[in-house]
Amino acid sequence: MEIEDTLLMMPGPVPVAPRVLRAMSRPMINHRGAEFAAMYDDCRDVLADIFQTSNDIFVVSGSGTAGMEAAIGCTIGPQDTVVALENGKFGERFKDIAARYGQVDPVLCEWGNSFDLAEVEKKLENGARAITLVHNETSAGILNPAKEIGRLAKKHDALFIMDGVTSLGGDDVKIDDWGVDIAVTGSQKCVAAPPGLAMMSVSKRAFEAMDDMDRMPYYLDLKAYKKSADKPGTQTPYTPAIPLFFGLQEALHIVREEGMNARMERHRTEGVAVRAAVKALGLEMFPQLNEKSQYSNTVSAMKAPEGLSSDDIKKDMKARGIMIAGGQNRLSGKIFRIGHMGNAMPKDIMLTIQQLEIVLKNRGVIPNIGAGVEAANEVFDARL
Amino acid sequence: MEIEDTLLMMPGPVPVAPRVLRAMSRPMINHRGAEFAAMYDDCRDVLADIFQTSNDIFVVSGSGTAGMEAAIGCTIGPQDTVVALENGKFGERFKDIAARYGQVDPVLCEWGNSFDLAEVEKKLENGARAITLVHNETSAGILNPAKEIGRLAKKHDALFIMDGVTSLGGDDVKIDDWGVDIAVTGSQKCVAAPPGLAMMSVSKRAFEAMDDMDRMPYYLDLKAYKKSADKPGTQTPYTPAIPLFFGLQEALHIVREEGMNARMERHRTEGVAVRAAVKALGLEMFPQLNEKSQYSNTVSAMKAPEGLSSDDIKKDMKARGIMIAGGQNRLSGKIFRIGHMGNAMPKDIMLTIQQLEIVLKNRGVIPNIGAGVEAANEVFDARL
Repeated sequence: MEIEDTLLMMPGPVPVAPRVLRAMSRPMINHRGAEFAAMYDDCRDVLADIFQTSNDIFVVSGSGTAGMEAAIGCTIGPQDTVVALENGKFGERFKDIAARYGQVDPVLCEWGNSFDLAEVEKKLENGARAITLVHNETSAGILNPAKEIGRLAKKHDALFIMDGVTSLGGDDVKIDDWGVDIAVTGSQKCVAAPPGLAMMSVSKRAFEAMDDMDRMPYYLDLKAYKKSADKPGTQTPYTPAIPLFFGLQEALHIVREEGMNARMERHRTEGVAVRAAVKALGLEMFPQLNEKSQYSNTVSAMKAPEGLSSDDIKKDMKARGIMIAGGQNRLSGKIFRIGHMGNAMPKDIMLTIQQLEIVLKNRGVIPNIGAGVEAANEVFDARL
Repeated sequence: MEIEDTLLMMPGPVPVAPRVLRAMSRPMINHRGAEFAAMYDDCRDVLADIFQTSNDIFVVSGSGTAGMEAAIGCTIGPQDTVVALENGKFGERFKDIAARYGQVDPVLCEWGNSFDLAEVEKKLENGARAITLVHNETSAGILNPAKEIGRLAKKHDALFIMDGVTSLGGDDVKIDDWGVDIAVTGSQKCVAAPPGLAMMSVSKRAFEAMDDMDRMPYYLDLKAYKKSADKPGTQTPYTPAIPLFFGLQEALHIVREEGMNARMERHRTEGVAVRAAVKALGLEMFPQLNEKSQYSNTVSAMKAPEGLSSDDIKKDMKARGIMIAGGQNRLSGKIFRIGHMGNAMPKDIMLTIQQLEIVLKNRGVIPNIGAGVEAANEVFDARL
């Protein structure tokens, strides 16, 4: 029996609200007409609030990775150096993308560990053109210090390119205050739209940097996105994925209805609740924090209990109708991750913790169920 | 009153069948699971029939342009020469993309004119790494001689990169017979899915050519697509646009139900019918054919009648609920285009011709209505 009700508690794709699903079944429209222009403008308005920015906003038909590449490919030439900060899979991805276009001077951290800002600054002193940071490292559940990196980038005149894929729309991201030149997010994360779109903000300084580029990508040419967006009837340079725009617009309306402040508070509270449950169940969070880093507010990464692969926990949860995430690449089997992003509500978190308790009890990790649920519930009762 | 019933008779996006629209409102799934793998494999099976190929097939989350760039970006380095054939806007686009990655030796034809194969061969004699061709030049309504270009490419050992965006799925395209190394199509054209996906075939020879590339794009890295597709549970390297895959799969099932032979015959007949109506109305087709080229079977381009801008025809048709296309860039105002691709049925063509007649009569171009409808109907009656 397949009734399409698996609860996605992964860090994306997240469940999409029925009204968003319905929006995607609208008939196609001409993407060079007024109707598309109004929809795109509406999306960009809400996104400007989410990004807290007055920079240009674009929506690229492609995944968040396409957005990351647009940022690098449009600003980095073969002779340019990028200080790429890596403490997880997506930091590694930024590093790999940068290596396709320029020279990379990486800051390599154990995945899940915190960056040493003195080491970062030392790298920047060698004169990098850009620095890349994954704000919320989805693979490791750690929130990196974007504000401090922005300060260092400004001090050393480097472009600040930031992956905000799992923070924008769920957590506090101050693009203008922090001086982020190019920021990227993906549709299937905190704004809870379907996957397939990258939303980006691009600063005036970033556009100026593009002026001395010899070669730039074509499909991901941000100057082309600006030219098309600046037309009186706002457009995208190439055919947009129309149904995904329908879905994004509806998802952004939901964000606006909740209000970003309430949305951030909800995400934070859900993070606190999950961590309270983790502690009550005798599990251990995966990230190693220092005074500048924090646990992610949108995804929690836990170590697998002694003697158990996280793949087993994931498999058991799936059999119970809940999809959580394991660890990626070198973290495979070692950690498991619960996404609490997008429109994941306290009741979804409560169900996930309840089922996790049962899985852990069945696997002999804990003797009784109940402690995690109680701890999480206390948090929700006190804060929401 | 907006009842969402504008008839799209443009060369894409085309109308999408209700069952395809419904498929897109399914809840999200994990794109790293068995359900996604089965869906992707199913799509690739039908696409292999459409492409008439045993080459690898991939689906990229991005527009057809992204597919064109993947083909160029993965095979062309800064020192490589591309013979780029241009007789319309999309030929020009291939040329522009090639210029981002390598050296371009273009064959420039007036838009809508036919290529001189002797000139093409002369260019190839200088030792190009690749030749690019737009099979069906959507902007000009001309079908270019892909088979002959394939023969020349093979003779001169050049990679044959072909845009089949508005032929694949509607017209006869023999990827293997013609020796096309990389072929690209878009979801919103002849297969009548929503826009946002590029479907590609890639030959063994094309993959071998990638082995000596220094730098390749990241999001559009075809080797990464192959690696992910070759896994036991077929995947895409980056998060796919899940709702568009739901839609594509359903649209491809419709193609399979009709059968490619019947589908090609329907497209051809629709082209013949439109051209019969054009002649009966005293209008003129835009393309200048030679013995190697043909009128497109999926989109017809007509010259605007003397003293009238094609924008006015387009505007009048839109007011009557039918969206046709004008000319792009240098052809703006000069030509208008009627798409007869995807699931556009004879009754849609008949309505479009009927309304066009009324528009032309109201504008004083023809004295009476009826001749176009009659001519088109005769074609349909005789052939379908």
